[in-house]
Amino acid sequence: MAVEREGADVEAAPLESLTTPCLLVDREKVETNAHAMASALARHAVPLRQHVKTAKSIEVARLVAKREHAPITVSTLREAEHFASHGFHDQLLAVGMTPSRVPRIAALAAAGARLRIIVDDAEATRAIGAAARAAGLHLEALIELDVGQHRGGVAPDGDALLEIARAMASSSITCVGVLAHAGHAYDARTAGDLARVAEDERSGAVLAAERLRKEGHRADVVSVGSTPTALYAEWLDGVTEVRAGVFVFQDLFQAALGCARVEDIALSVLTTVIGVHPARGTVLVDAGALALSKDRSLDAVSGSGFGEVVGLDGARMRRRPTITWVNQEHGAIELDTLARVPRVGDRLRVLPNHACMTAAMYDRYHVIDGRGQVVDVWSRVNGF
Amino acid sequence: MAVEREGADVEAAPLESLTTPCLLVDREKVETNAHAMASALARHAVPLRQHVKTAKSIEVARLVAKREHAPITVSTLREAEHFASHGFHDQLLAVGMTPSRVPRIAALAAAGARLRIIVDDAEATRAIGAAARAAGLHLEALIELDVGQHRGGVAPDGDALLEIARAMASSSITCVGVLAHAGHAYDARTAGDLARVAEDERSGAVLAAERLRKEGHRADVVSVGSTPTALYAEWLDGVTEVRAGVFVFQDLFQAALGCARVEDIALSVLTTVIGVHPARGTVLVDAGALALSKDRSLDAVSGSGFGEVVGLDGARMRRRPTITWVNQEHGAIELDTLARVPRVGDRLRVLPNHACMTAAMYDRYHVIDGRGQVVDVWSRVNGF
Repeated sequence: MAVEREGADVEAAPLESLTTPCLLVDREKVETNAHAMASALARHAVPLRQHVKTAKSIEVARLVAKREHAPITVSTLREAEHFASHGFHDQLLAVGMTPSRVPRIAALAAAGARLRIIVDDAEATRAIGAAARAAGLHLEALIELDVGQHRGGVAPDGDALLEIARAMASSSITCVGVLAHAGHAYDARTAGDLARVAEDERSGAVLAAERLRKEGHRADVVSVGSTPTALYAEWLDGVTEVRAGVFVFQDLFQAALGCARVEDIALSVLTTVIGVHPARGTVLVDAGALALSKDRSLDAVSGSGFGEVVGLDGARMRRRPTITWVNQEHGAIELDTLARVPRVGDRLRVLPNHACMTAAMYDRYHVIDGRGQVVDVWSRVNGF
Repeated sequence: MAVEREGADVEAAPLESLTTPCLLVDREKVETNAHAMASALARHAVPLRQHVKTAKSIEVARLVAKREHAPITVSTLREAEHFASHGFHDQLLAVGMTPSRVPRIAALAAAGARLRIIVDDAEATRAIGAAARAAGLHLEALIELDVGQHRGGVAPDGDALLEIARAMASSSITCVGVLAHAGHAYDARTAGDLARVAEDERSGAVLAAERLRKEGHRADVVSVGSTPTALYAEWLDGVTEVRAGVFVFQDLFQAALGCARVEDIALSVLTTVIGVHPARGTVLVDAGALALSKDRSLDAVSGSGFGEVVGLDGARMRRRPTITWVNQEHGAIELDTLARVPRVGDRLRVLPNHACMTAAMYDRYHVIDGRGQVVDVWSRVNGF
């Protein structure tokens, strides 16, 4: 097949030539989604530090940034190493740091990358500082804030914020600012709620940064973000960068939140019908749990199942069929929700509930153009 | 690190030397589980055709078979190709076949592998036969039966069985037997229920084989199985092979069904504490949705959450802590379920709800011995 090997010269090929299940990315929709995010942030004149955890792809990151070597957010050291090796040297690791991660960060720094970390615990900060000194590494860190999700982070108005800043100062770690992630945006159900959560994120981050500065610490960086809060924030005064990731592909959950139209979803799983059972009222496809993930985000909002079934051309069907259940290599569709009775061998596509989870089941993307022709193959960097 | 590269000469290394999250396999527990399955089947003098879809690992398959090149069941053509390249030439692809898969099977046959397929649709059988003829491939197939799961397959006592056999005969596909998989065993909750489901599987398969033979078709192969029915079957008269996969690792769901003890689970995810939040009552670890999968099988049986948290030494804790929720790179534990308040950087292990799904998130296993030393690295073959 002309498009199987990454980096090979590729000729356009039809979807029918691909082995299923496989993961499709519509390049033009990625560009549309990137443009929507850029426009939203341009209103506030705040730059994007895109989170590469969704696509984990150099090509997607370049397409979104429209330039080489834009600042990025990473969620794993594997991402950090992969992107650094492609010139993305300005990185923020936005998952809680541990002392055992210091050696890999030291190796990244030695190779020219600047990876900033986050901390939310004074004792851990001292242990990380000790590990960094032992490795000859100078670390710059942001203090992680809790602005309402109650996952990681410290309260913007609490004592722990300043204790951590002091622990950094005494541990040779440079405090460079604060990071807030309003993950509870995913519990919001209206534009008004999303705007309020975005303001909680902004105001908490700005307050914490001001408290740090007042005590003589650096707080150059006021980093906030998620796709919903980036798109729904009414103002971002005092914010220096916005992190967002899933917007590059969008998904059914983001569409249910009002952050995209279903027609904007750039990611889909190409699947083949492997069984037609009229007496049981079901159609089986080869997109099961390993092809889609077991993410059921939609249960909490507008729907159910493991993804929406659309035509080979990406067009939605009137009755909005879904994958109602999955086994490892089987997905089921209710026959009467489809536009017509398919045959074994027919092909369909499935839109993901949660793009980050579905994409994680694959090591590559088959890239399609607006005509549905496969024009490229892009790799992903999975693992930790 | 001494054990990062597959196939390299490795020295034993402590768990502390590994990057987290990562996937651990206890080699001795795999051997124990393989022995339990071998003993169960020895009572019936029926051979195992192990399903490699759980481990997707040459080394695990060899450890289970205790010999080279044992018969295997595969769920993807990627598995088929990988195992064939390591000499496992006797294969059964136990997921519904499509015409588009013929070229890869023809390539396997040309390389010396014998991969049998399953069919459950007369029209599809004719299309597959036409594709095989065009590729110069002679196919041998089993007819897939529905013995109560109502996923794929035809009724053992219905007309479709014989129609498909005739379609095979007229399409130059050799009928070699029948395949039944009692997936509804996973809805059973008692040993008695499991034994009854196993008997449905056996009796349905034997009936269908007899009907085929009576009409002059070959039915040498009467293939049944799943881990629960293999372990709980009271007799297997008329059965020629048993398929089972998850038994190699076992998991919390199998333990809840009574197919293993929790202490037998050979698979676990090594994780590091990345946040301790006494005021919120939570501990955060770096095993989130990408490290564990979003499988929630336990909800249907004995528990909840995304896996049971055990000590670094694999020992269970009194209050049976679980991962109560996950984000992409975060998992949460209720602090008061742990034996003691941990520190950032401490390590724990997580037992999987569903071994097939958790293992699928990784491209390799770190193999540990009975002392918890890392002694090897085995690769997995993911993808389709």
